[in-house]
Amino acid sequence: MATNHGKNLRLTIFGQSHAEAIGMVLEGFPSGFFVDRETLQQFLNRRAPGRNSFSTARKEEDQPRFLAGLVENVTCGTPISAVIFNSDSRSTDYEELCRVPRPGHADYPAFVKYGPAHDVRGGGAFSGRLTAPLCIAGGICLQYLKQNNIFIAARIASIASFRDETSGDLSEWLGICRKEFPVLDDRAGAKMRECIASAKAEGDSVGGIVEASVWGFPAGLGGELYDGLDGKLAAALFAIPGVKGVEFGAGFEASCLRGSENNDLYCYENGTVRTETNRHGGILGGISTGMPITLRVAFKPTPSIAKPQQSVDMYSKETVSFCVKGRHDPCIVPRAVPCVEAALAVELTDSLLDWKG
Amino acid sequence: MATNHGKNLRLTIFGQSHAEAIGMVLEGFPSGFFVDRETLQQFLNRRAPGRNSFSTARKEEDQPRFLAGLVENVTCGTPISAVIFNSDSRSTDYEELCRVPRPGHADYPAFVKYGPAHDVRGGGAFSGRLTAPLCIAGGICLQYLKQNNIFIAARIASIASFRDETSGDLSEWLGICRKEFPVLDDRAGAKMRECIASAKAEGDSVGGIVEASVWGFPAGLGGELYDGLDGKLAAALFAIPGVKGVEFGAGFEASCLRGSENNDLYCYENGTVRTETNRHGGILGGISTGMPITLRVAFKPTPSIAKPQQSVDMYSKETVSFCVKGRHDPCIVPRAVPCVEAALAVELTDSLLDWKG
Amino acid sequence: MATNHGKNLRLTIFGQSHAEAIGMVLEGFPSGFFVDRETLQQFLNRRAPGRNSFSTARKEEDQPRFLAGLVENVTCGTPISAVIFNSDSRSTDYEELCRVPRPGHADYPAFVKYGPAHDVRGGGAFSGRLTAPLCIAGGICLQYLKQNNIFIAARIASIASFRDETSGDLSEWLGICRKEFPVLDDRAGAKMRECIASAKAEGDSVGGIVEASVWGFPAGLGGELYDGLDGKLAAALFAIPGVKGVEFGAGFEASCLRGSENNDLYCYENGTVRTETNRHGGILGGISTGMPITLRVAFKPTPSIAKPQQSVDMYSKETVSFCVKGRHDPCIVPRAVPCVEAALAVELTDSLLDWKG
Amino acid sequence: MATNHGKNLRLTIFGQSHAEAIGMVLEGFPSGFFVDRETLQQFLNRRAPGRNSFSTARKEEDQPRFLAGLVENVTCGTPISAVIFNSDSRSTDYEELCRVPRPGHADYPAFVKYGPAHDVRGGGAFSGRLTAPLCIAGGICLQYLKQNNIFIAARIASIASFRDETSGDLSEWLGICRKEFPVLDDRAGAKMRECIASAKAEGDSVGGIVEASVWGFPAGLGGELYDGLDGKLAAALFAIPGVKGVEFGAGFEASCLRGSENNDLYCYENGTVRTETNRHGGILGGISTGMPITLRVAFKPTPSIAKPQQSVDMYSKETVSFCVKGRHDPCIVPRAVPCVEAALAVELTDSLLDWKG
Repeated sequence: MATNHGKNLRLTIFGQSHAEAIGMVLEGFPSGFFVDRETLQQFLNRRAPGRNSFSTARKEEDQPRFLAGLVENVTCGTPISAVIFNSDSRSTDYEELCRVPRPGHADYPAFVKYGPAHDVRGGGAFSGRLTAPLCIAGGICLQYLKQNNIFIAARIASIASFRDETSGDLSEWLGICRKEFPVLDDRAGAKMRECIASAKAEGDSVGGIVEASVWGFPAGLGGELYDGLDGKLAAALFAIPGVKGVEFGAGFEASCLRGSENNDLYCYENGTVRTETNRHGGILGGISTGMPITLRVAFKPTPSIAKPQQSVDMYSKETVSFCVKGRHDPCIVPRAVPCVEAALAVELTDSLLDWKG
Repeated sequence: MATNHGKNLRLTIFGQSHAEAIGMVLEGFPSGFFVDRETLQQFLNRRAPGRNSFSTARKEEDQPRFLAGLVENVTCGTPISAVIFNSDSRSTDYEELCRVPRPGHADYPAFVKYGPAHDVRGGGAFSGRLTAPLCIAGGICLQYLKQNNIFIAARIASIASFRDETSGDLSEWLGICRKEFPVLDDRAGAKMRECIASAKAEGDSVGGIVEASVWGFPAGLGGELYDGLDGKLAAALFAIPGVKGVEFGAGFEASCLRGSENNDLYCYENGTVRTETNRHGGILGGISTGMPITLRVAFKPTPSIAKPQQSVDMYSKETVSFCVKGRHDPCIVPRAVPCVEAALAVELTDSLLDWKG
Repeated sequence: MATNHGKNLRLTIFGQSHAEAIGMVLEGFPSGFFVDRETLQQFLNRRAPGRNSFSTARKEEDQPRFLAGLVENVTCGTPISAVIFNSDSRSTDYEELCRVPRPGHADYPAFVKYGPAHDVRGGGAFSGRLTAPLCIAGGICLQYLKQNNIFIAARIASIASFRDETSGDLSEWLGICRKEFPVLDDRAGAKMRECIASAKAEGDSVGGIVEASVWGFPAGLGGELYDGLDGKLAAALFAIPGVKGVEFGAGFEASCLRGSENNDLYCYENGTVRTETNRHGGILGGISTGMPITLRVAFKPTPSIAKPQQSVDMYSKETVSFCVKGRHDPCIVPRAVPCVEAALAVELTDSLLDWKG
Repeated sequence: MATNHGKNLRLTIFGQSHAEAIGMVLEGFPSGFFVDRETLQQFLNRRAPGRNSFSTARKEEDQPRFLAGLVENVTCGTPISAVIFNSDSRSTDYEELCRVPRPGHADYPAFVKYGPAHDVRGGGAFSGRLTAPLCIAGGICLQYLKQNNIFIAARIASIASFRDETSGDLSEWLGICRKEFPVLDDRAGAKMRECIASAKAEGDSVGGIVEASVWGFPAGLGGELYDGLDGKLAAALFAIPGVKGVEFGAGFEASCLRGSENNDLYCYENGTVRTETNRHGGILGGISTGMPITLRVAFKPTPSIAKPQQSVDMYSKETVSFCVKGRHDPCIVPRAVPCVEAALAVELTDSLLDWKG
């Protein structure tokens, strides 16, 4: 289902890249919450295409139209629905795709699943464009979490092998959202931009890693086994197109450590149990510990590249050489940063509602 | 909920380490399937404690007692339930834990969630022992998948920094399950064992990575966004205690590649669409491609170590030095290998049932 | 959640009576199905207001605008979303309701649940208008079921104490949908109309019973206990505003029979197991038997009446006399007939997809 | 799935009549709750077979063995699991059923669903015996609700056409549970008993109606459309074997009333909004109003009767005359009374947990 597994809050996303509209329904959100539409739009602008030279030339206003659930921007308790009408789509770019699946895209497996009726135009329901409704829901949840003193911020941790080494404090992290290129160290950012520009110039693309942190999330949420907060967040993060890996805290590096190196020791800080370090990333045994939740998400390079690639013609069953047409980001990572924040915000709000009742 | 999010097949796991029993209920499994109890027991033995010098000294028979759902070892269509009665538990080892949470364990966040009634004995519901009922369900699903020509195998890919470099073919992978120490290259395995033995000698522990492959899974299962097969598998893998990261195909390394390097090119092989390489790991856009599903799971070092560690006394609110008592594996990775297979088997059977109707 | 509990097919309904729009998202519907828009509109017209003298004077076109999931009226496999924009709403009619809850309506309990932010205008999300999106989804499912030789038809079984005694054969039942007043015996229908007109003239309203039958639904769908087909259908029927009771087959009357009178005896008919009578209503032990599914749904009289009624002012905490303003049906039963068909169609399609895989 | 649709509390029931055991897993129950085992056993005894001359001669102790989730009878927060081992089963009674389905039972549709592997012994998973685990879960929930000043009581409203006319106050209702034959008016009860005895003497059976009331349930729980409290309760009640109809408040009779007769007028009572009458049965628009929840459940006559009946031999495809062997209640209604209470208790606890957070 195109619905998350929320217990209290359930997000359904619909639409295809070239359908009349894309949109979302968010059920279970508390009533009486004022949605700051301007702040929401600023958040959506961080994801919107056409902002800078690294993103697709397709320009969409990405302004949500709220159909239900808000009365004068205040939630009334019933499902919130918002849509974005698709305006600037050029469907002729995609006709060949019905026959020749693009390497690295969902074209082929979607064809197997849905058959010839599958809407391949613009990537259909597999388009990165479907993260816009995710960001509408996530943007509302971010405001709700903030009101509850919970802050989520994400940055580009790396593009190809170029890393944003600085760790940064909370205020620096929260400042990231005002940056066009969301890194802590702008010099590292400059190198990453060069790397993207260079790939673009060669008709190629690059991948990268997004790192996110959550401050203020209360201890005691989540649960053992299939009820784990980490599993829940991971499932939501893998729903973002292009994600190939998710790790929490020290993540894969923890596999190289000894227990005595990896364990975070407990201490008291202002009467609260804390850990002196945070290699566990804020979750132990599937339950939040009250320490910042930290995680990293690996994005593959955009599969749509201008270079000719080998594919197959599914009608003639021949191998063909093939160039992806249309407009595509040479690197999706910068625009993925708010998507990671949004995906986390929806799931963490769902969990928080358990606690707030 | 301690239940997976299965659509057709739903697994509920219950029990605590020192409860009367641990067990599982598996709903939605097809009727008329013969469960080979001997093969199932061999699978469970791969996870069972006390098999070698690296696992906890606690000895349990880990023999499931089937309460319902089977008639003469044939599934009758109604929920399958099996339990393992707990016999060899030494609860006195854990009394201190009510006050002093073990670093790296769920003791503290579970205390916040469940309050003083939480069953801390032996790690309660957070014990690795709860993977035994997972393996009962998974072992049955593995037999079902095998009957459908789908094979799952996992190996230790690394212990600390020691890697099992060999890639191996299907028959080598399937032979892993007969090995006491599940690696492809036994020389690499010998180094890993030394590494574990050395950590144990120092009262310490080590982590590692489990790699799994699935052959024969049909293309076209899974779906976009929250319906993704990768997100579903990831959620189930994070349900295994000690997992800190999950990646598919090239995973985090894909973030360093260019699109032209990472894209897998399509070709025809015996009339079927295949990719020439498999960096995508068998899943694109959340849907299976028919190529082997490949993934890696990072396990942290066992948090229970013999070395003294700093923790806090939650009653006196003081910092205390603390030694974990009880019997613990210096490395959980070898016993985690069948758990990864089991977690995958349950989710892939659930997806396959979509296809078989 | 405003979402049904579908396993394969999930329907989410959103909107309030005076929101910008009402709409639905239908996930899991098979791809490649041609939706006959004209037939769908005819179905929606059966529910639409303003058709005859018994329904509210509010006129809406009730023409769905499909936003996603259809490409040239063929389903593409991804969620289907359709909305109806609200045009003819007169919100000033409802201002008093924030303070004075209408007897028999959801105003008071919704106020307790959602607080003062609750959208009380036009009944908000509790308006019978929300059955329009249900009918969009249901209308599509009815076409799908028909293609699978499954037919659903409902009629008015009674208005107040006036009954449509005739039982009717399949062709008569299927002809009901072409009638303005859906009864088998038009003379009984004339008496019912008089009864409604008489109540309307007195500023009052009347209730009634809708009876539905399903032909061609295969045996073996549903399951024991919480998986029962009857429980699933009942839950969906109670989702229709105004429903107070649901019974299957002989229903409440079965409680007065002896086993020897109530049991339906098995026989063979054209090589198929059938029952000679159908007091069980097509479901035994929660599973379909292949006999027609028959059920009856009790609707209360429209709570909105022109007569003055006693209520309370929730601000001054005083008892007040109160007249419901606005436009209301003196009897919702005629318009409820297609809603019952729609609610059944959605659930039965969900179950059928289990079978078709 | 044999699991309810609980949001906070999820009940899974497993077992077949002649399996090794029947049992349940209850997830999401709050931690730290003391389960009074003696009170629980008294509740289970109300449902247990062999209590009086109207119930099956099969004697089972029906004493639950708790496997997990309780530590010294206090819930520890993780799933509660309890089983009842089956001891007194005579499987030879049922061999014929593999070929000849019993009229009025699930034998035939279950055979279609599950195929020849279906466990037909003793009715398998469709046996009324599966209400014992329901009552374990329900009995725990009843204690929890009582601690929250919510009381559920059910009575026999009628057996065949013999009615318990008295309405009764709360204390009389709560006294019902101490009666061997749960009616308010014992003279009416005497007639009902005669009616049952007479049916039994003739090798026949009778049906009846159970009426339930819930006091103290807070206003504002439930929701519109598919989130309705009435739909949720109805789904759970239809999960009890033998139920053919469910109605709330005035129920089917409301369909004969005018709006001015059926609407319950609001008033203030001790500062709280109440209705002067309760024809709505405590739920409006799917949400609780704070008035007692009242409902009636129709049970069909036990399908197992001693009289010869016509059925079919599914192997020879011939019509056969057939006598149901084994031990069966001439009327299931008396034992169904605690089952109705249990089914309601589980669902209402689930809803209450929304409110308590």
